[in-house]
Amino acid sequence: MLPVKIAGLGWYLPSQRVTNVDLEARLGIPAGWIERVTGVRERRYVTDETTVSMGAAAARMALEHAGLSIEDLDAIVMASTAPQQAIPCTAALLQRELNAPQGASACFDFNATCMSFLVALHTMAHLVAAGTYRTVLLCSSELVSNSLNPQERESAVLFGDAAAAAIITRSQPDEQSVLWHALFETYSEGADLTAIRGGGSRHHPNDPATTPEMNLFYMNGPAIFKQGARLIGPFLERFFSGFTWTQSQIDIVVPHQASRHALDVLTKRLGFTGEQVIFNLALRGNCVAASLPLAFAEAVGCGQIVRGDRVLFVGTGAGLTLGALALTF
Amino acid sequence: MLPVKIAGLGWYLPSQRVTNVDLEARLGIPAGWIERVTGVRERRYVTDETTVSMGAAAARMALEHAGLSIEDLDAIVMASTAPQQAIPCTAALLQRELNAPQGASACFDFNATCMSFLVALHTMAHLVAAGTYRTVLLCSSELVSNSLNPQERESAVLFGDAAAAAIITRSQPDEQSVLWHALFETYSEGADLTAIRGGGSRHHPNDPATTPEMNLFYMNGPAIFKQGARLIGPFLERFFSGFTWTQSQIDIVVPHQASRHALDVLTKRLGFTGEQVIFNLALRGNCVAASLPLAFAEAVGCGQIVRGDRVLFVGTGAGLTLGALALTF
Repeated sequence: MLPVKIAGLGWYLPSQRVTNVDLEARLGIPAGWIERVTGVRERRYVTDETTVSMGAAAARMALEHAGLSIEDLDAIVMASTAPQQAIPCTAALLQRELNAPQGASACFDFNATCMSFLVALHTMAHLVAAGTYRTVLLCSSELVSNSLNPQERESAVLFGDAAAAAIITRSQPDEQSVLWHALFETYSEGADLTAIRGGGSRHHPNDPATTPEMNLFYMNGPAIFKQGARLIGPFLERFFSGFTWTQSQIDIVVPHQASRHALDVLTKRLGFTGEQVIFNLALRGNCVAASLPLAFAEAVGCGQIVRGDRVLFVGTGAGLTLGALALTF
Repeated sequence: MLPVKIAGLGWYLPSQRVTNVDLEARLGIPAGWIERVTGVRERRYVTDETTVSMGAAAARMALEHAGLSIEDLDAIVMASTAPQQAIPCTAALLQRELNAPQGASACFDFNATCMSFLVALHTMAHLVAAGTYRTVLLCSSELVSNSLNPQERESAVLFGDAAAAAIITRSQPDEQSVLWHALFETYSEGADLTAIRGGGSRHHPNDPATTPEMNLFYMNGPAIFKQGARLIGPFLERFFSGFTWTQSQIDIVVPHQASRHALDVLTKRLGFTGEQVIFNLALRGNCVAASLPLAFAEAVGCGQIVRGDRVLFVGTGAGLTLGALALTF
């Protein structure tokens, strides 16, 4: 139980909307197939935005929402899958883009693919609770549109670009915000089911043996769905056995927007009602690590989640990693 | 003050030694230039090793040194600059390579370039102290030899490949091991001085505008040295003002092996004696994030550092990030 508070939230969406009609024409897909199979109606793709420019826009909004200024930050933490460049870490580039005071913040990156935001929130909450950092910027910014493989229809239409950010502070004694519990479990038997094999030391971009396909997203959707569906029930049982909440005490669920099928499993099989579950997949697509904080930030922005709500965050990411985190907002 | 203990250490060095004679011939460099300018006599380059295979070898050695088994790990954390591949995170691939039990550990990556190990140690120590994780594997594995630019002589000869690992547990009441204090400050005005511009979303490997040079290491050595030398004194003053140690109470200093000049500044200008400072640059080169834990692990391995020693870790990394951490081993 960590006395921490999400003091502010922000997000950024590229202005370019890409509709199913656009993609169906571009990729030679039958009309109606995308929405029927994936549940996505539109997604955003960057035009001139970068990972860092999207992250900075989300961060500025989160700071304003928290009533804090850039001078208050003592840690800038990126929680994303794809860096902007290999060196230095993206958080340092974000410090520069934000024009944050030199030397006033520690900058580093977390990566647990789609679970990056939850892992970083849980981890950094310990340091905020301990007083090691007072005001942490967590930022998930994902530019995925340039890594999609047009030959792999189901993933090529599923993803979108976006950024989201949160400001983490200690709760004051009169505030009810608490991070109650989190659990993360990685099942690497699924490591090859969601992959970009390139982009690292193994298949270096300059290696003539590295093919363009290696630098593009690969997903075995049915196999991941099967693995996730098998594991999620027992995982949530272990999660709830670790603290005092029961499933019925949850006000709202913010899932990673992995796919329509994954969201259906969470909602129906686990006994949540449709109104309890935040769903932005249709208009945003799966935005990788930015998906979950974006769904959360937009739900707070439109009043679907209010202070004092008991929120369950849950999802799966490449790895395969299952994650869940419970907090009182 | 966190009651945590580095329970075990391990490392891995590729068997291929690359001497200055080799590199002077290969790169057309005058005899003797490399050692005179960089202080490096030899370094290791991978042959068939990968980031993950090196990390796994170091991790197995660290587990054995700690007297623990793979089943004890509940978190596997990579603390490196370069991932093995873009998706999933390298920690998940390490779980698989180690044949660690499915679902028994959370797997994620940290990146603060050369400061990755220190940042991850400090961060994860909070979770070990809180009892959130009981046995954490921290692993830094760097395969840098395929990202060196033969046109940039000073950096091309400076770096080497290696991995190092540490097992972090809670200290028992009768043990003196404690993490006392850490400080990290990023000065992003230096973000362009050490860079690989490619390898991320900005200059995608499949983008025809991405040049091979963008995927190689770039370093403005003199400018970084100047920035680091200007900042390190005041930084260490702030570091020591944050807790009870004085500089004279330190038994041994483990610096990041950035360069001979950087090590000279630390040793002489800051008032340490040569015997107090661990120096492995000459035989290992700068191994990026693996450099500091490798120097530490080898020093423990050969008895230069023993239980109860007061150790100061210090260094700079791309960003530019300055870091320092004090612990009783």
